[in-house]
Amino acid sequence: MAGNSFGTLFKLTTFGESHGIAIGGIIDGCPPGIQLDFEAIQQELDRRKPGQSDIVTQRKEPDTVEFLSGIFEGVTTGTPIGFTIHNTNQKSKDYSHIKDVYRPSHADYTYQQKYGTRDYRGGGRSSARETASRVVAGAIAKQVLGEITINAYTSSVGDIYLEQPYQALDFSKTESNAVRCPDAEVAEQMIARIKKIRKEGDTIGGTVTCVIRNVPVGLGEPVFDKLHAELGKAMLSINAVKGFEYGSGFCGTKMKGSEHNDLFNPDGSTKTNLSGGIQGGISNGMDIYFRVAFKPVATVMQKQEALSAEGELVEMQGKGRHDPCVVPRAIPIVEAMAALVLADFMLLNKSYQ
Amino acid sequence: MAGNSFGTLFKLTTFGESHGIAIGGIIDGCPPGIQLDFEAIQQELDRRKPGQSDIVTQRKEPDTVEFLSGIFEGVTTGTPIGFTIHNTNQKSKDYSHIKDVYRPSHADYTYQQKYGTRDYRGGGRSSARETASRVVAGAIAKQVLGEITINAYTSSVGDIYLEQPYQALDFSKTESNAVRCPDAEVAEQMIARIKKIRKEGDTIGGTVTCVIRNVPVGLGEPVFDKLHAELGKAMLSINAVKGFEYGSGFCGTKMKGSEHNDLFNPDGSTKTNLSGGIQGGISNGMDIYFRVAFKPVATVMQKQEALSAEGELVEMQGKGRHDPCVVPRAIPIVEAMAALVLADFMLLNKSYQ
Amino acid sequence: MAGNSFGTLFKLTTFGESHGIAIGGIIDGCPPGIQLDFEAIQQELDRRKPGQSDIVTQRKEPDTVEFLSGIFEGVTTGTPIGFTIHNTNQKSKDYSHIKDVYRPSHADYTYQQKYGTRDYRGGGRSSARETASRVVAGAIAKQVLGEITINAYTSSVGDIYLEQPYQALDFSKTESNAVRCPDAEVAEQMIARIKKIRKEGDTIGGTVTCVIRNVPVGLGEPVFDKLHAELGKAMLSINAVKGFEYGSGFCGTKMKGSEHNDLFNPDGSTKTNLSGGIQGGISNGMDIYFRVAFKPVATVMQKQEALSAEGELVEMQGKGRHDPCVVPRAIPIVEAMAALVLADFMLLNKSYQ
Amino acid sequence: MAGNSFGTLFKLTTFGESHGIAIGGIIDGCPPGIQLDFEAIQQELDRRKPGQSDIVTQRKEPDTVEFLSGIFEGVTTGTPIGFTIHNTNQKSKDYSHIKDVYRPSHADYTYQQKYGTRDYRGGGRSSARETASRVVAGAIAKQVLGEITINAYTSSVGDIYLEQPYQALDFSKTESNAVRCPDAEVAEQMIARIKKIRKEGDTIGGTVTCVIRNVPVGLGEPVFDKLHAELGKAMLSINAVKGFEYGSGFCGTKMKGSEHNDLFNPDGSTKTNLSGGIQGGISNGMDIYFRVAFKPVATVMQKQEALSAEGELVEMQGKGRHDPCVVPRAIPIVEAMAALVLADFMLLNKSYQ
Repeated sequence: MAGNSFGTLFKLTTFGESHGIAIGGIIDGCPPGIQLDFEAIQQELDRRKPGQSDIVTQRKEPDTVEFLSGIFEGVTTGTPIGFTIHNTNQKSKDYSHIKDVYRPSHADYTYQQKYGTRDYRGGGRSSARETASRVVAGAIAKQVLGEITINAYTSSVGDIYLEQPYQALDFSKTESNAVRCPDAEVAEQMIARIKKIRKEGDTIGGTVTCVIRNVPVGLGEPVFDKLHAELGKAMLSINAVKGFEYGSGFCGTKMKGSEHNDLFNPDGSTKTNLSGGIQGGISNGMDIYFRVAFKPVATVMQKQEALSAEGELVEMQGKGRHDPCVVPRAIPIVEAMAALVLADFMLLNKSYQ
Repeated sequence: MAGNSFGTLFKLTTFGESHGIAIGGIIDGCPPGIQLDFEAIQQELDRRKPGQSDIVTQRKEPDTVEFLSGIFEGVTTGTPIGFTIHNTNQKSKDYSHIKDVYRPSHADYTYQQKYGTRDYRGGGRSSARETASRVVAGAIAKQVLGEITINAYTSSVGDIYLEQPYQALDFSKTESNAVRCPDAEVAEQMIARIKKIRKEGDTIGGTVTCVIRNVPVGLGEPVFDKLHAELGKAMLSINAVKGFEYGSGFCGTKMKGSEHNDLFNPDGSTKTNLSGGIQGGISNGMDIYFRVAFKPVATVMQKQEALSAEGELVEMQGKGRHDPCVVPRAIPIVEAMAALVLADFMLLNKSYQ
Repeated sequence: MAGNSFGTLFKLTTFGESHGIAIGGIIDGCPPGIQLDFEAIQQELDRRKPGQSDIVTQRKEPDTVEFLSGIFEGVTTGTPIGFTIHNTNQKSKDYSHIKDVYRPSHADYTYQQKYGTRDYRGGGRSSARETASRVVAGAIAKQVLGEITINAYTSSVGDIYLEQPYQALDFSKTESNAVRCPDAEVAEQMIARIKKIRKEGDTIGGTVTCVIRNVPVGLGEPVFDKLHAELGKAMLSINAVKGFEYGSGFCGTKMKGSEHNDLFNPDGSTKTNLSGGIQGGISNGMDIYFRVAFKPVATVMQKQEALSAEGELVEMQGKGRHDPCVVPRAIPIVEAMAALVLADFMLLNKSYQ
Repeated sequence: MAGNSFGTLFKLTTFGESHGIAIGGIIDGCPPGIQLDFEAIQQELDRRKPGQSDIVTQRKEPDTVEFLSGIFEGVTTGTPIGFTIHNTNQKSKDYSHIKDVYRPSHADYTYQQKYGTRDYRGGGRSSARETASRVVAGAIAKQVLGEITINAYTSSVGDIYLEQPYQALDFSKTESNAVRCPDAEVAEQMIARIKKIRKEGDTIGGTVTCVIRNVPVGLGEPVFDKLHAELGKAMLSINAVKGFEYGSGFCGTKMKGSEHNDLFNPDGSTKTNLSGGIQGGISNGMDIYFRVAFKPVATVMQKQEALSAEGELVEMQGKGRHDPCVVPRAIPIVEAMAALVLADFMLLNKSYQ
């Protein structure tokens, strides 16, 4: 399997199946001399972990990270940071029913075809549990980024949208409710929708918006590794993501150039920001903002047809403890991946200065 | 500048500014023994070239590719394929007016800030002229892909949408009109809209849809380098792209899991295909389809405020010969980037079999 | 720290300091479906581990590898193989005396200057303990290589040389003595020399010769990543290595072309093999053989001047349990790195066939 | 073909066969704002070019480099530098006799087996002509390196050795004779030897020593990408190289640790420098020096047996104009590859500071 590493200089390589001994990773290229805030790292993991509220999966996974290297007396040494998160609550028996069955819209079938074998327990390598390693690395990247702030939030659940532009929101409210929507009223509607869906044994999709502020001018490598291209890849690599747009996005396609152009202020900032903080693949110092589409979770608690390894259609019913909507727990993952992209470009940018 | 290479095994590295001597690239990893169809390559370049119809820029650039290596007696040898496309119609004087001026929503300002210098003529490295090199490499990649077919087409211009699903379209019609929309009636509306916009001295955005067929099961590397994540990065790296979605995309976020899941047929194909041909980052053998958002071209033929290098707002007017809508010429670029992604994953997939 | 990964498709990434919690690594790209021989892996680690004989360091490190992922029911799944080796015998107090002192010909000074900080315990990241992770990955690579055999042995200790050509040796004898020289008589001389040196509180260098057989024609990428260039890098990346030569090596520089050329047999094999099994960076099917130079270990049990962090010359004496000659324990490391190189080129070669 | 790129941040990618239209390359990552000295670049090419003296091949290749991008008004812009060197003196008819014949100790056989096809003219991609692209990139890298100086010279031809240590030499004399040995007397002997060998229709090997001065402390990435490991790979990737040693090299293996250790001066420099300027893979500020072994050129002007494509041994005689000793022309190539390694590590080192 190629594609287990992300980044060029600030680089995360991960390993681990959801029901193996542990998941984890190695962070290469973290600059030396950073006094790490370990509580902040654990806090990010806690935002992602199952069982944190009554609208997410009720699995219990403490998700405690153990750092094995690269840190000496609390300070990064510049050497690779190895870490593991042990899988403490494996309950492998939950998954024996899918050993010879490919669930619809899961990766069971494609893994089996590609590799000729698979760890079928809990989705194995294809499980979103893998994203916990990203959250650890992203939490460290955030500490590398200095003044840059990254705030993601739930901007829709099903057809319930937070209509306000991000500029009108108070991001300090995002964590005040279980769905991570900074508008309390809309959050309540979203939560109600998720509870209803769960009661139906069904699931629902949604979108996450992410806003990055205080980005210096000059991040991004402007041909294939444009800043937004890497952000897009980073987001699309998260489980269940179906789309990415930044700045004016798909709406911008309906606009005229004369409306869409962001006129300058004398200091180089722009009067509008339909560009989403990026020009020609390079940050221009304005807010970067983008939106990520998450499909509904494939595991529903209803009877569905699946495919057996022998090529027969069999009836199966989702078991276990799954998320009715992936979006609330995806917030810290979106932020983590954004932080990895920015940290990498920051180091790259230093190299020729 | 990092980020000038695309791909791991089938790898394209490019160079060139729009008004330098030449643009070009090196293709590494092209398998040996392929009898190249050079006409097909030139045909792709002709689909991208300026001046091809009355709704695109009237610049005259013949865009003839010269292959310098890697091909012997018409057959690939497995060694790197070097190629150049000379810039024959440079008209550098057209651009002297932007030497000390940053145009709104162009990359002038960000390049200048990042590098402290820039080739300002015609956008230099940030010009979409760079994509001609991608088209060459993509045309070769297509010849590596065997039975896989890639068809992109214009699915919207401004608010004029081609509403039919791709399954209802006849892709052999795409090239029959200047806007590259396979529905003749909608194409006419789109063309009329573009002409109207041009007359206003303005520009307009649009979307491209791309459909990939006959993909074998198993392409894609399923953590960071998911098939759709690489496709997304590939598309977002094209000039003027603001968004990417595949399969159900942003619409899928409003659906329930019970609606969204693609149930299997006994042969492993699926009854629906909201997944867009990809499960867990790996192709499942169904059609891959995605949509790409292009913003309106920033160069408008109207007076606009720009920023001078001295920090003053100055009035400027777009000159030269520019596209009122980038979408028709973007079709071969979208296909080329898709071909590069697939060829690379095809080679990667072979490596462990 | 960049440079923690080795390989393109069969790729090892490592982490860990000698006195941290654990060292370990991630192996990407191992093909799926391989029934691993775990005993063989542990055996390689045992060949490298301290305390195995009376001519190596008497430190006690059991060096037990724990696999965390990528293996299901004993078989590789194609997903990344994460593993750790815990540091059980840390004895950190042994190293407090070097906290503010840079030992001569160690990496203390250069790490401190480069990173501004370091884990000084036992050499930290610069310790040869890091090579245990390479041995694990190399042992798995060997199981990927099929019929290819890799045999390294001690070919000199100080000025005691094994003069016989490798063709005259019986590699099954290599493990029959503590110094890993397949000639019993020479081995005894080498052992006597090492014991004498240790008694003097001193150390001694030596060379390792490695022979690779049954290599298929066609491995190696013939410009920058020539097969011997990667083997050379692999060997030079091992601690204490000062030189590498393959085939006729430095001796070949004194020869004439008419003597040096390897004439063909009708089957494509060659009558002589001064080329060392590689032509133009690509394996030609003949034995690959090379020689690696190891300097004497820098830690001597004698008084020596060191440099204090304050810039003063201070007297210090080596403490702890160190190897008087690194060569015997380097044998499995040389083999492991050779295996990694070959496995990677084998996968690369498959990609275009 | 993988392995056509060298470097991580300062990266050279090359293309070209000896008898194709052109060879050339792309340099990524060259910092912006450097006023290039084009004469210095051409001078390096002239040091490598055929026909420069009466002891090298009498082929006439002017080797003029044309820069296509990345440079604006003589100054690097930070964008990729594309360049070509046209093959003006192809004389392809010289090579028709090797179309279906594999010459001994050439890459004909291995290329044919690996790729199933090859451009047989003049060795095609395996020709040392490819190194001209390295010389161009190295000449630019030298201009990035500032105060660092790189001096290579011929230290042996056959069994004629320059016995003096490099410290006793005056590098300004290196270019004063055709063999590039800074000692006039030894140079004469070497030249006489080469002329004698040529008269015999034979060839001879030799060694190149390279000395790098004024290297800042801290270059090199200390696990797999140790500074000397990359230097070693760089040298071993040059055609005809069979060995590499740095610092005490193979001689160091006979020494005791108490003799070999380099004791410090109070300022961090060392009293001796058997380490060759590198500790733990990182430069320590002392001179870096290494030695490279070149085998005798395989093309001899005598009758030799070759292998036909049909598996028959056939008599052939070398034709064309070849070097009797590759070493004099290898000097600028060794320097160029060293410059590429250092420039890359310099950029990498900046990234975390």
